[in-house]
This record gives sequence, C-alpha cells and structure tokens, in this order.
Amino acid sequence: MFHNNRLCNLLGIQQPVIQGGMVWCSGWRLASAVSEHGGLGILGAGSMTPDFLREQIGKVRTATRSPFGVNVPLLFSKAEECMQVCIEEHVPVLITSAGSPAKWTAKAHEHGMKVGHVVANVKFAEKAEAAGVDFLICEGVEAGGHNGLEELSTLVLTQLVRKATPLPLVSAGGYADGKGLAAALALGADGIQVGSRFACSIESSASDIYKNHLLKVGTLGTVLTSRGWGPTRVVPNTFVNELQGLERKGASPEEQREFIGTGRSRRGMLEGDLEHGELEIGQIAGLFTGVASVAEIMEQFRTDFLETVQRLTQEL
Amino acid sequence: MFHNNRLCNLLGIQQPVIQGGMVWCSGWRLASAVSEHGGLGILGAGSMTPDFLREQIGKVRTATRSPFGVNVPLLFSKAEECMQVCIEEHVPVLITSAGSPAKWTAKAHEHGMKVGHVVANVKFAEKAEAAGVDFLICEGVEAGGHNGLEELSTLVLTQLVRKATPLPLVSAGGYADGKGLAAALALGADGIQVGSRFACSIESSASDIYKNHLLKVGTLGTVLTSRGWGPTRVVPNTFVNELQGLERKGASPEEQREFIGTGRSRRGMLEGDLEHGELEIGQIAGLFTGVASVAEIMEQFRTDFLETVQRLTQEL
Repeated sequence: MFHNNRLCNLLGIQQPVIQGGMVWCSGWRLASAVSEHGGLGILGAGSMTPDFLREQIGKVRTATRSPFGVNVPLLFSKAEECMQVCIEEHVPVLITSAGSPAKWTAKAHEHGMKVGHVVANVKFAEKAEAAGVDFLICEGVEAGGHNGLEELSTLVLTQLVRKATPLPLVSAGGYADGKGLAAALALGADGIQVGSRFACSIESSASDIYKNHLLKVGTLGTVLTSRGWGPTRVVPNTFVNELQGLERKGASPEEQREFIGTGRSRRGMLEGDLEHGELEIGQIAGLFTGVASVAEIMEQFRTDFLETVQRLTQEL
Repeated sequence: MFHNNRLCNLLGIQQPVIQGGMVWCSGWRLASAVSEHGGLGILGAGSMTPDFLREQIGKVRTATRSPFGVNVPLLFSKAEECMQVCIEEHVPVLITSAGSPAKWTAKAHEHGMKVGHVVANVKFAEKAEAAGVDFLICEGVEAGGHNGLEELSTLVLTQLVRKATPLPLVSAGGYADGKGLAAALALGADGIQVGSRFACSIESSASDIYKNHLLKVGTLGTVLTSRGWGPTRVVPNTFVNELQGLERKGASPEEQREFIGTGRSRRGMLEGDLEHGELEIGQIAGLFTGVASVAEIMEQFRTDFLETVQRLTQEL
C-alpha cells in the first residue's frame, strides 16, 4: 500500500500518517514508536527546553532508524533555540506552526530538512506555499489544543486548501483510524496528521490520569475556550468553567491570560490535575474506548484503510 | 453505481444524495430537479404555509415521478398542520428536525412514509433510533442555518453516530461534490445530505442576489451566531455585526431574539437584503465559483465519486 503516495515518497515513510507534535505527549517514546511502525513520529518542542529536545532527538535515533520530525510552534519563547537544535542535529523533517514559515523554511532547506507548515485557512496556506514549504498540514476546528480563529472544519478546510494549492497536503483534526484516512484521501489530501489518538496511547508521555480521563470525552464532550483571540479545544472542567465565567463577564483577553497563567497544560496533561489543569484534546476522543498501543493504532490505519477502499469499490 | 447502497434501496433513489430542506431555497423547482436527476429532492416546509406546501407537493408530482420528501422542523409553529398535509398527500419521505421524532414517526409509518430525523449528537441519534425512524441524518457544525449546541464537526459526528447505531446514516454539513460523497461513505455513512450547494443552484427558489452573494463566501467566511441557545451559521453582514455586538454586551437570548425579530431569513434569502437580512449558508460555500444547475451538480457527484474511488484503489 501507499507506494505511489507522494507524501510517503517525500518523507520516506510507509503510511501517510503523521503524528501530531503535542505538548506533554510527544516525547521520544511516542515519536520513535510511530516512526518505527511506518508513520512519521514527531517530537513536540512546544513543551521542551532546547537541551531536553536535543536529548529527545538522540533517544529517537537510538530507538529507530526511520525518519522523524520536530514540531516547533513559532510563537513559542524558545522557538529560535529549538530551531537551532533541529539544524545542528540534522532532524529530517521540520513542522512549523503558529507563526510565519517565511523566516525558517529556506534555512531548514539549506540543511536538508523537509518542511511542513500547519495552517487553518486558505490565506495562510497560500503564504506557506509562497514561503517554499514542502507540504502543508491543514487543521480544522475539531482538533485538540490550539486552533485557527476562523473555526473552519477539517472537512471544509481540506477541500478549500486542496483547491487553492497543488502542494502535498496533510489533513488534520478528527482522524483516528483508517476509515478517516480513506476519507481524507478521498477529499484530495495526501495523508493525515493524528493527534488525539496518539495522545491517548501507551507511548504518549502524558499522565496516565489524563489518558484515562480522555475515555470520558464521549460523555463530557470538548469545548473551545478563548474564542476570538486564542481558541483552544479542551475537556471541560473546573478551570474551563472559571475561564468561561470570565469570558461571559466580558473579561479582556489580557485578563483571561492572567487567569490562565503559565503551566496550565503541564498541570493537566503531565501532572494529571483534572480539575485545575488544561486538558487539551480533539473532538474525536469521543470515539476512544481504551488507551491503545502505537502498534495497534498503526495496524488499524492499515487494515481499516484497506477494508474501506474495498468497501467503496462495491458502490461502483 | 450504488446498486447495493442501502439508502438508495430504502428510498428508491439512484444516488445517495439528499437535498437539504432549506428555508426559502427548497421549493418544487429544486426538489423536483434533484429527484428527477436521481437524488432525493426535499421541500422545506419551514418557510411554507400548509396550503402553500400542498400546492408545492402537487407541482413536484407534476414535474417528476421520482420519490421526494418534505422536511418539517418540529419546533415550527405550523409543524402539526404541515405534517397533516404530508400525510394527506402521501408524501413518500418525511424528514423531521429540531424536535423529538417520537411524536410523528409511528403515525408517518402508518401512512407508508419513510422517516428520517436530523441529529447533531449521539444522544439524539439514539433517541431517534428508539423512536423507530428509518434513517438518521447527522449534521455537523459547518452546516448552514440552524445547528446543534455541541458544535461537533461533520467528520467527528459521523464517526460517533456510525459507531452508536446500525441505522442507515446520512452525513450532512460540508459536502458539495463526489469527493465529499466518497469521504462520507468511507466514514461509514450511507449517503450525504447537501444543502448549501443546492441553495446556490439555478433551481433554488432563493433570491438571485443572495445566490450571487454566496460566491463571496470564500473571502467573507461564515459565522455562527447565537451560540449556546440557537447556533445559526450565516454570512457576516450588518445584521450579524449588530447581533454580535449585543452578544458581547451580554444581552440575554430573549433580548437577542427580540432584535432578530421575525422574517430575517425571508428578508435576506428571499428578498435579497444583503445587509439587514439573515443569509444562512454553510462553510462549504467558500468553494463555490458559480451558481450551478441541479443537472451539473448531480453529474459532478457521479463522476467525482467514480474518479475518487478509482484514485483510492491506486493507493492499495
């Protein structure tokens, strides 16, 4: 399968599945397991110091010889230093998000890296294409964590971006198995990025308390906080109720930021504080019935995809 | 194509495409054209008097011998009378929305009608199944007009509802061509409901001013107004700015309802008042480059679907 898939050929992977570079979840264990099973594992630099990132890159290399990548949110305070680490360590794939790709793409290319950029609307997709990125990741409003202001759904965003640019395209937000992979490829994407399903995997570096709590998302749902200035999809809890209370009272973004403070996602996702921490996750977690291993998840992508395409051919 | 599709077999149609029953758009011209081209045309009773609905049913029957349906929003003030008209006129398919399907499903079945119900979350899907409906339509947050409170995307909602119930399932919100149809079937749906693309068709009974304005949605985007009490997806304009100003000031739902008043969607969609009317439409309108005929739209579903499935088989 996927021998003619241009995302697989571009990145040197066996399945067109990129693991999301999520804060607190995407350490070396998760990244190396995904890469070892044929996808593209990603270290999430957004919750790492530059030294820790360098150490994690070393551990990925010890665990697998397959390609992997690093996600650097460009608005992250340590973005510049993390980027320097990626260059020095000859990381095969760089994924940039939350900022302009113009600054780093050429430099990353000089050092032989492939560059992908995450976008949430057509305008940024066109800008990223102009900046020379190798592929695009378009992420819809159902995705976990930080989101675009436009709140375009993955289904619609993928079709809009596919029409706007010929670049290899990765669809993100709402995918957890091979049926979703087939749907994304039907829409014209070349692959998918999967976050929540891997956040809730055995190899995820997040707290087991957080991972087990995600199995209740089918009942609890998710909410998008900080609409209009920094939309973030999370599991509702006391922290979210308090934040939404401030929003309803008309608190300014500055006042809301002050209430959120620093370390909220660490508190929720790494330390397992289910009430006062920030529990980032996508809507698709409502589908999860267990914490799965990367091997199981990757196998399901393959078998579900095969079954799905065979099922679709029966409609012809 | 679609010979083994259970939605097609249930409804007696050739393509698993149901036209949305939209206010001001879905009169006899649109409904009969969709049915005549192999989909299921739907009259939208939500903007009709019972007498007008009866007349429209007669006109559909004159224009086509193919099956068609009527959508009745159950919270609509004339729902009961419209339902009576559907029964007396032996309408083949009834689609209920915005209310409980428990009241009407058995009665509609007694009169030989097939019944579908529109849901926006898993709980209502299970309730509709318990009420005995023949099929479900699950509609995501990217859809135009009235939306569920949970704001689940079509991609996620379809997977959740598919897992929760074995009923024939129609996915709605974000679809406009055969690539989308293939994506929906990949996710396990049996067909799609298409609103916006048909709202922006030659046969749509909406104002040409409204239809031509929809071609700017790629730039203007859409917004979801009345979040939390009656989410409605529309094109932004003066009316929406004023409504959102009230929301920001903390106006109660009652105060917002009073500002909206009656006849807003008529003013926007039928009378073409682009500034002070309500212009309901889905996010997918961002893809439209022209007002198309139903024949073109239906042909694109067929050819795109075929091409898409053939393209997917090349990934195996």
